Amino acid sequence: MTFNTILIVGGGLIGSSIARAAKAYDQAKTLYITDNSHSACSAIERLGIADGVSEGQADYFASQADLVVLCVPPGRMGSVAEKIIPNMKSGAVLSDVGSIKGAVIEAVTPFLRDDITFIPAHPIAGTEYSGPEAGSADMFKDRWCVLTPTKKGLPETKQLKDFWQGFGSQVSIMTPKRHDIVLATTSHVPHLIAYTLVGTAVDMEKVTANEVVKYSAGGFRDFTRIAASDPVMWRDVFLSNREATLEVVDRFIEDLTALKRAIRWEDGETLLEHFAKTRDIRRRIVDAGQDSAEPNFGRHD
Amino acid sequence: MTFNTILIVGGGLIGSSIARAAKAYDQAKTLYITDNSHSACSAIERLGIADGVSEGQADYFASQADLVVLCVPPGRMGSVAEKIIPNMKSGAVLSDVGSIKGAVIEAVTPFLRDDITFIPAHPIAGTEYSGPEAGSADMFKDRWCVLTPTKKGLPETKQLKDFWQGFGSQVSIMTPKRHDIVLATTSHVPHLIAYTLVGTAVDMEKVTANEVVKYSAGGFRDFTRIAASDPVMWRDVFLSNREATLEVVDRFIEDLTALKRAIRWEDGETLLEHFAKTRDIRRRIVDAGQDSAEPNFGRHD
Repeated sequence: MTFNTILIVGGGLIGSSIARAAKAYDQAKTLYITDNSHSACSAIERLGIADGVSEGQADYFASQADLVVLCVPPGRMGSVAEKIIPNMKSGAVLSDVGSIKGAVIEAVTPFLRDDITFIPAHPIAGTEYSGPEAGSADMFKDRWCVLTPTKKGLPETKQLKDFWQGFGSQVSIMTPKRHDIVLATTSHVPHLIAYTLVGTAVDMEKVTANEVVKYSAGGFRDFTRIAASDPVMWRDVFLSNREATLEVVDRFIEDLTALKRAIRWEDGETLLEHFAKTRDIRRRIVDAGQDSAEPNFGRHD
Repeated sequence: MTFNTILIVGGGLIGSSIARAAKAYDQAKTLYITDNSHSACSAIERLGIADGVSEGQADYFASQADLVVLCVPPGRMGSVAEKIIPNMKSGAVLSDVGSIKGAVIEAVTPFLRDDITFIPAHPIAGTEYSGPEAGSADMFKDRWCVLTPTKKGLPETKQLKDFWQGFGSQVSIMTPKRHDIVLATTSHVPHLIAYTLVGTAVDMEKVTANEVVKYSAGGFRDFTRIAASDPVMWRDVFLSNREATLEVVDRFIEDLTALKRAIRWEDGETLLEHFAKTRDIRRRIVDAGQDSAEPNFGRHD
């Protein structure tokens, strides 16, 4: 057991998964959850995944916790930190699960105290569903969790690493800046593009929404899953990781424009060359255990 | 049984699936496959999914077939039609499974004879895998198959409709032009975008390919599946459906530019409004039986 008492602030998809995993993998003696939604709190109680639940008072169990994990949308991290940090006990560890790190650190830092240690974290896991019912104890198994400690060699970093490894996660350490550009590439821009494409398809005057639905198995449906993710969280991610997102989007638009030109000029060689190289990265992802090799992700039609 | 003897030209993912389905659903008495690849022919023989296999001679069984289905990449439809049509028996039906219809019709039409009927078709099904081993008898179950007959009220259209419905497919009829813009939206542009994004990520100097692989579960991996599809087929699709593809891509770039602007100007409302509306189309796709509602398409991490 890495921490005795844990407080999860925000019992949604990720928060409730940490709660389940902490129990399943024996990583906490006592686990509390606070959430500002009434229905989420009822669900958490019904699911029995916490030793105590408090509605609307983020800091309710803060004074008892050895580890507090902020699992709220990036845009709420600052205000929640402001409320909780003054009530935390001396020597406790504060962490989060935000999909961006630079902006979260910036929002939390003004409220930090010398006697607590803040280790920002980002478990790269999730599904398109939201809320406590969607969580699972194995959400983080075989997935990577990135820690972006602001100081080197802290014993608390080692402790938090053990905590995440206890769930079956692999842990890597990088700077907040590097995290934000890597994740802009592998997560944020893919989401932005999926949201955009689904919107474009729905707005095409020449094609009805009904047709888009009927013929979605040709590729479109895979985008709709990603574009069904929590809208509030993603708005916050894009606004908080603005610079890196825009940098990757610009690169993507450049590349798309080049392929567009190849199509317009019937340059089949350029297309083929580009398409052939993308297969290799798929194979590497499957080999690395980051996706299923079954066709359609194992989806059985 | 709708057709007595069937010839499948090209025994890859789709061709071999038709062969399997025709046997499993009792839609053919005799079924032949021709393919110009030696390894594909060996695999088809080993799998035992055809009553006869011919390597390199597309027209080998053509004189016996009541139905010939061209299952080759769009760019090869014309040359294969030229070879096969003179050898087809009078009264037979010719069809195909090309992902674009206008260009296939244009390529095949010069070789048509008055005593055979050409009914273009497109079953909207598939996976990211290629080749005869990747096929399955239930590939077309609950999926849509679009027929684009060039004349109205043909009895052969009804016959081919029965054939596809026999596999559990739903059949719809539309003009080639409409098919090509609808599929540009639901399939061709999604593939182009997936291919582009995977290329962009791999080429980012600031992010290593290793990092892209490790952190792919944040959304990127879903794109790599689509971008692992057969490169030759997709090159042909884009070149053959140039006009519609470019029209949808331009709309997509417009929309992406608008969201980019919203991010740059921190206009959270525009982002939220856009992201919220895409959830509904996901729900409709699941309700229409065109995708699994399980998280991650039922992929178990």
